Amino acid sequence: MKVEERIKELGLVIPDSSPAGGSYTPVTQEGNILFVAGQIPIRNGEFVYTGKVGKERDFNYACDAARLCITNLVAALKAYLGDLDRVKRVLKLQVFVNSEVGFMKHHLVANAASELLCDIFGEKGQHARTAVGTNQLPMDVTVEIEAIVAVTQ
Amino acid sequence: MKVEERIKELGLVIPDSSPAGGSYTPVTQEGNILFVAGQIPIRNGEFVYTGKVGKERDFNYACDAARLCITNLVAALKAYLGDLDRVKRVLKLQVFVNSEVGFMKHHLVANAASELLCDIFGEKGQHARTAVGTNQLPMDVTVEIEAIVAVTQ
Amino acid sequence: MKVEERIKELGLVIPDSSPAGGSYTPVTQEGNILFVAGQIPIRNGEFVYTGKVGKERDFNYACDAARLCITNLVAALKAYLGDLDRVKRVLKLQVFVNSEVGFMKHHLVANAASELLCDIFGEKGQHARTAVGTNQLPMDVTVEIEAIVAVTQ
Repeated sequence: MKVEERIKELGLVIPDSSPAGGSYTPVTQEGNILFVAGQIPIRNGEFVYTGKVGKERDFNYACDAARLCITNLVAALKAYLGDLDRVKRVLKLQVFVNSEVGFMKHHLVANAASELLCDIFGEKGQHARTAVGTNQLPMDVTVEIEAIVAVTQ
Repeated sequence: MKVEERIKELGLVIPDSSPAGGSYTPVTQEGNILFVAGQIPIRNGEFVYTGKVGKERDFNYACDAARLCITNLVAALKAYLGDLDRVKRVLKLQVFVNSEVGFMKHHLVANAASELLCDIFGEKGQHARTAVGTNQLPMDVTVEIEAIVAVTQ
Repeated sequence: MKVEERIKELGLVIPDSSPAGGSYTPVTQEGNILFVAGQIPIRNGEFVYTGKVGKERDFNYACDAARLCITNLVAALKAYLGDLDRVKRVLKLQVFVNSEVGFMKHHLVANAASELLCDIFGEKGQHARTAVGTNQLPMDVTVEIEAIVAVTQ
């Protein structure tokens, strides 16, 4: 099944890609490897999920934030590639979770991101991953996710 | 000398690779570059080293944790490659140390990891590296290490 | 314009590359991709910018720290490549900012790094980027930056 069909079946809407939130480029490429800038849970220019997990925000809130990061990752890939079927393999995610000391389920928050990615790309979405906590993310967003992706040429 | 011989000389036992602790893949590959998921200090399914350096845990404890991460990294490579002599070069480590504000020796903790890697792989183990602190890691593990590795094809 | 000429026009002095601050290698290469170890704001062996943004250090101080990291990144590339015109594209930066909870402008600190890189390398300096906070960096440095860079062969 084509990626766009899966996205439709999942009931997802991939937005237009957000402009980079700084002096950088959303995607760079060398050979058939793409480096995708850190994605945050932003929608229509608004920071949708902010605050720390473990105190003012709960686990499910962080999972929703992680899923929106993935939606924005897919938007960035679509804007760069045109055709999402050019994704050959998602190689790696790095997931940063804005969290209180004592919150220890960063890997479970990351699962929400990983599972959505596999729902969208199937086997090509299966990736290596690192998930860590941090005491603070830019604009106090709850999750930030960067990716390395292989594409067909 | 072959890598397996070095490992024997060092008195190390490389365990069977742990299953991924989430919805991800331990190793992905594009061309001859491997992306290895973040390794934690786990043994036989048990979190062996937990807690923060600088308060409840001391420097040597963190170094032991870092070495166990490397043992698990080698296990992941062995499970994926079959033959550890297929490792051409360890390209990069990223080392996250679960630490209190005020602990500043993350790079020295990372040295424990780096030196074991060089003991195992010799010159092929010499890598670029980033070492940083974090206020919290998943399951409160003391160290987490991810790697990018070149292999012969 | 050649990179060295831009550097002269900017009034920058690229120092000799610092030795690695641990058991690692400043730069590794596979194919035409370089992995550059985390750069810190060090000069002549001295940690020039230390402390956390948001309390004892202000925003501009952190930007200066980020720029010194980039200067040291360029020094590492020059030591490795000999000729900086061999840089084909800066693919990715990862920027860690040593910061207090509540400081939320990590991306703006990272802009200082990104903009200097583009001043030096022009379009070839345009990169993908991730910027995050951390509760502590090695030796309490204010910023640490790692890079992935494509080179001509």
